[in-house]
Amino acid sequence: MENWDVVIVGAGSAGLAAGIYAVRSGLKTLILDEKLAGGNIGDAPKVENYPGFIEISGRELSEKMALHCKSLGAVIQEFEQVEELKSEGEVKLVVTSNAVYRAKAVIFATGAFHKTVGVKGEQEFRGRGVSYCGVCDGPFFKGKKVAVVGGGNSACATALYLSGLTCNVTLIHRRDTFRAEHRLFLDVTSKANVAVLWNTEVEEIKGDRQVRAIIVKNTVTGEKSMFNVDALFVQVGEVPNSMVAKAFGVETDAAGYIKINLRQETNLLGVYAAGDVTTHPVKQVGTAVGQGITAALEVYNYFLQLRKVNVIE
Amino acid sequence: MENWDVVIVGAGSAGLAAGIYAVRSGLKTLILDEKLAGGNIGDAPKVENYPGFIEISGRELSEKMALHCKSLGAVIQEFEQVEELKSEGEVKLVVTSNAVYRAKAVIFATGAFHKTVGVKGEQEFRGRGVSYCGVCDGPFFKGKKVAVVGGGNSACATALYLSGLTCNVTLIHRRDTFRAEHRLFLDVTSKANVAVLWNTEVEEIKGDRQVRAIIVKNTVTGEKSMFNVDALFVQVGEVPNSMVAKAFGVETDAAGYIKINLRQETNLLGVYAAGDVTTHPVKQVGTAVGQGITAALEVYNYFLQLRKVNVIE
Repeated sequence: MENWDVVIVGAGSAGLAAGIYAVRSGLKTLILDEKLAGGNIGDAPKVENYPGFIEISGRELSEKMALHCKSLGAVIQEFEQVEELKSEGEVKLVVTSNAVYRAKAVIFATGAFHKTVGVKGEQEFRGRGVSYCGVCDGPFFKGKKVAVVGGGNSACATALYLSGLTCNVTLIHRRDTFRAEHRLFLDVTSKANVAVLWNTEVEEIKGDRQVRAIIVKNTVTGEKSMFNVDALFVQVGEVPNSMVAKAFGVETDAAGYIKINLRQETNLLGVYAAGDVTTHPVKQVGTAVGQGITAALEVYNYFLQLRKVNVIE
Repeated sequence: MENWDVVIVGAGSAGLAAGIYAVRSGLKTLILDEKLAGGNIGDAPKVENYPGFIEISGRELSEKMALHCKSLGAVIQEFEQVEELKSEGEVKLVVTSNAVYRAKAVIFATGAFHKTVGVKGEQEFRGRGVSYCGVCDGPFFKGKKVAVVGGGNSACATALYLSGLTCNVTLIHRRDTFRAEHRLFLDVTSKANVAVLWNTEVEEIKGDRQVRAIIVKNTVTGEKSMFNVDALFVQVGEVPNSMVAKAFGVETDAAGYIKINLRQETNLLGVYAAGDVTTHPVKQVGTAVGQGITAALEVYNYFLQLRKVNVIE
């Protein structure tokens, strides 16, 4: 069984940043990802908000981070899924689809995924007008005609954010009431540049190189209509990838996000979390990076203490 | 008097990252710095730990961030010192060396500065063997002979960090006891590759293009000696630049760092802090960036709430 100082679960921005700092701190570092290294940002065609790069494709940015991490000596194993964590005293056993590793510390940087509406054109136009993040992509559509689909807090917050960017916003919800907080709902409906389509579902997304229009259906009357938009923001839910952590006893909030403090510590000694999987209020590349760095240096500090008390060799 | 949505005090990594996100969120954003934009990182000759750049000079990185921020429309005013903050209801008045601005929110990203030992060669070899940050620059001297000067927690922690990087470390302290926590002291003195020189002061730093040696003096016997080192890590104290914030009523810890939570909020409504000036446990470019981003987006959220209750127009 291989011994590692730290196993980082997830090779997105948070995991790679953690890897860079862990290796530089002299820790024997293994990074595992069930997919390719890079994380969600790899899907973004254009990133304009990672400080230092005025404009870069998400793929290029994620490749740069992975290369950066590897060049320092971190081992990144792709297509290896972490299935379970077990305790062996203070040591953690990381059970994957391929092997079992012993780790003195574990960082969960497993991210989250956005639910899709699952309609024709959604996959095709992803990154070309179909977006899952208003703060990330909204500024590309300043003053344009956009639609938001969803009925919860994130849909209303996204509509408001786009409204502040002087977009002409249509908020599309399949029910006749919002699940969002009342305050958010009032804010949204008070905006002159936000219209709400109740009882309405998106049926199809149409375009050429970019999104140009959507077809919607009224769920009560069955009537279909098409209207022009430059972008569709899908806000129908986000799911943090915290199942393995939770099963191991890591504390999450009601939505499944791993609870962390300023040191990226979880409720379990030697278990840290960073990035979109955590309760940190912001889900951006730059914040994931900051959290990953913090987690790695706190793992280092944790080891200092362990060596002191000789818990593990 | 100019009206701004947010005034960011300090144009280092944290302030510039905050600026990028504030402008993209549609906020009218002013960034003030008493010096040139860029912050402390501009002094680092080589940065190898900002994820995405395998190697970049600190100056180039800080210039990229400043350009990034300006290209989006943030106004950065250099050589303008913030002298005082005043309240006008929920609005903050930012009094500088040149003017008074009205701001709905303020982000302190004022950083911290490292105390120097003030000896011959220190300025000359800064960034060429003289360093103020073990985590930043230690990995450049893996396996080399290095010295650390200081007697507090940060000096001991730096010596330990360098010891973990298989450096041959000499810790130089002008007194005969450490101010560091006992645990840290025990850790340091237990390391085979760490030697402690008590009652010793650094008198001079010598070298060619790089640091090659230091001259030290025993404060009891007055005896001087020279020994070869590849680097000197100066850890004689750090001072957060929080005077203006403190005078305005922003809560700090005993050392003067601004207390923040995961949202970068301070104890005062509408006042945020990010980067090295805060109590965040890690002081790195990547963590400053993450905090700056969070502060800006939380300012945006704060405005949503303000608009709702009509506190300001």
